[in-house]
Amino acid sequence: MTTITLLSDFGLTDPYVAQMKGVILSANPELKIVDVSHGIERHNIAMGSFILETALPYFPEGSIHVAVVDAGVGTERLPLVVQCEAGILVGPDNGLLVRAAERLGFKAAYEIVSHRFRVEKVSATFHGRDVFARTAAKLADGLKPSTLGAEVKELVKLDIPSVSVSDGRVTAAVLHVDSFGNTILNLGEDQFLRLGLHEASHIVVETKHGRLSSSIARTYFDIPRDQLGIVLGSQGYVEIAMRESSAAARLGLKPLDRVEIRFS
Amino acid sequence: MTTITLLSDFGLTDPYVAQMKGVILSANPELKIVDVSHGIERHNIAMGSFILETALPYFPEGSIHVAVVDAGVGTERLPLVVQCEAGILVGPDNGLLVRAAERLGFKAAYEIVSHRFRVEKVSATFHGRDVFARTAAKLADGLKPSTLGAEVKELVKLDIPSVSVSDGRVTAAVLHVDSFGNTILNLGEDQFLRLGLHEASHIVVETKHGRLSSSIARTYFDIPRDQLGIVLGSQGYVEIAMRESSAAARLGLKPLDRVEIRFS
Amino acid sequence: MTTITLLSDFGLTDPYVAQMKGVILSANPELKIVDVSHGIERHNIAMGSFILETALPYFPEGSIHVAVVDAGVGTERLPLVVQCEAGILVGPDNGLLVRAAERLGFKAAYEIVSHRFRVEKVSATFHGRDVFARTAAKLADGLKPSTLGAEVKELVKLDIPSVSVSDGRVTAAVLHVDSFGNTILNLGEDQFLRLGLHEASHIVVETKHGRLSSSIARTYFDIPRDQLGIVLGSQGYVEIAMRESSAAARLGLKPLDRVEIRFS
Repeated sequence: MTTITLLSDFGLTDPYVAQMKGVILSANPELKIVDVSHGIERHNIAMGSFILETALPYFPEGSIHVAVVDAGVGTERLPLVVQCEAGILVGPDNGLLVRAAERLGFKAAYEIVSHRFRVEKVSATFHGRDVFARTAAKLADGLKPSTLGAEVKELVKLDIPSVSVSDGRVTAAVLHVDSFGNTILNLGEDQFLRLGLHEASHIVVETKHGRLSSSIARTYFDIPRDQLGIVLGSQGYVEIAMRESSAAARLGLKPLDRVEIRFS
Repeated sequence: MTTITLLSDFGLTDPYVAQMKGVILSANPELKIVDVSHGIERHNIAMGSFILETALPYFPEGSIHVAVVDAGVGTERLPLVVQCEAGILVGPDNGLLVRAAERLGFKAAYEIVSHRFRVEKVSATFHGRDVFARTAAKLADGLKPSTLGAEVKELVKLDIPSVSVSDGRVTAAVLHVDSFGNTILNLGEDQFLRLGLHEASHIVVETKHGRLSSSIARTYFDIPRDQLGIVLGSQGYVEIAMRESSAAARLGLKPLDRVEIRFS
Repeated sequence: MTTITLLSDFGLTDPYVAQMKGVILSANPELKIVDVSHGIERHNIAMGSFILETALPYFPEGSIHVAVVDAGVGTERLPLVVQCEAGILVGPDNGLLVRAAERLGFKAAYEIVSHRFRVEKVSATFHGRDVFARTAAKLADGLKPSTLGAEVKELVKLDIPSVSVSDGRVTAAVLHVDSFGNTILNLGEDQFLRLGLHEASHIVVETKHGRLSSSIARTYFDIPRDQLGIVLGSQGYVEIAMRESSAAARLGLKPLDRVEIRFS
């Protein structure tokens, strides 16, 4: 039984997600559909990319992952199927899929040429239902990605500022602010350990709004109340957090903002 | 494997939707349950009706659709099962089901007389769980709708203003504002094409708040920034939209508001 | 086919719930996963407890229920499996599980010692994924709760004010305010009937904000508009409600607030 996951910026109030599920179940009522998230901010590709990248590796091998954050729907941006070692991605070629594809082991990408699988009618404004969900159902039925259309050699990249490091100083970018206000940086576990940040005794977090001292903590609960903590979080990235409070609100941070961490 | 869909104005925070699912799975743990939407505004029958009407036709034939937007729960409004060509509807007779029933091919409706299927205890305030979910599970098990109670010859109608047309002018009503702010009118694709709106070169949208010029667009992305576009949307209706912005906010529109479109 | 239910304060936007589902389906893609609620207020154990207590009894016997409202994750609070007559609970020992465990027929509780089932890596901040979801999947596969770790004789209690009764007067606490504003009190159906409240002709509800007269009603619809009604609600508890309006907003009430009901 193949699992099909769905991610979008549609929210759960409108009929859109239900229509995608209806299309999939009409193709095969045995398919398992799991929502990854439909709470992506409207048109926020970076946020969708982060949720995909972190969530998808936990799903069974061979799962098919449909993702739709797609302001350019119906225009010249390509609809894609991306074959990976650990599963298949389906969605627009606008930067949304590329980091998840790397995590799942990118193999090859193909344009979806709709008439190849004889879809009768494709709405110009809802490829999530008329192209991506239908393609996912066909793939679950055994359709080979390579038969869908021409190979696409390079995916559109997502522009995330890179980490820069100098002596006792790291500049990173906010990847995601979770609903607890934990602020997840593009500073991975490996880099964190290599820098020796986990052994730092003095840490200062600097943003455009000012500086605050901080400390390393193993859990959120270990952070002294009303203070900032640096935690090696569950998503494989460094987080700036507070105990039962929002570090992002305290620091005025949002995704793609720059953060400087000074330590000694 | 029968699919049972659920729609309500309960939200997903309270235990209500989970209790409905528990009741269904306790009858048969193999049943497939899909949420259509639980974000219907409290007691907003018109909104629930729109989501049902647009979402349900995508589900497999034979699906059973439970819908609960039911301010009059426990009073004299009838609990119904509606047999359609393409599936079965279960919910209150208050206008919620009638448009979806027409879409799915109305055949006959029956009152649900609870003691017919020996429900021990029915709460006066939660028929969604104690009547509708239980009935859906029984129907999935093969119970014939006609055995539930007396036939109901005419369903309670939903009062949606009709479209009026004169030369170069259409007056329509807002059916739904989606979470992107796209404003969906009760002006169907057929009528749109018959009027020749798709070939209009000058279009003005007039609401009680004023007039704005607009243009026909194939996709949201094709609408010039900060301007209004008229799109033949994915739900089979004409939409007033903006590119990555809310047309409903710009026009001050909400469901059932009147909109006049002048074109030449 | 075993049903695994999930409850948390994670919301549905972040990758957390999806990761828990991915872990479960990677263990066994046939498992049925049902969301009870992920809308629990951050760290609000009393709210999580109420939703669990009311929702879980409706699920099939033998279901496995994972619950995570866990500000102390990674600290000395114990991760638990609670064997009950009607199912198994998995979550932190912080008061969240105890009332649901009583409802489902408490039999015995065991600490989860992770290395007992060879989890390679456990994040210090996300036991929901790395301990609780994995344990649930193992239990669904037949693992005996008693093999997980030492028996825990007494669960951490939840501190809910008790009901006090004197002649013509009941003092109760708010257990939950639902999304309609219905205010659910810790006054059960039995107590309500024993007190004769259902036959009272004069009722006054007193809170710290003032007094309002009220009346007994069978359904929400039967409450006169803009007035308070006392309803024996669908959750087995007395509710203070208004017709299509929020009683909690009118009375300024929130969970654990005290309410006095005087009647004659």
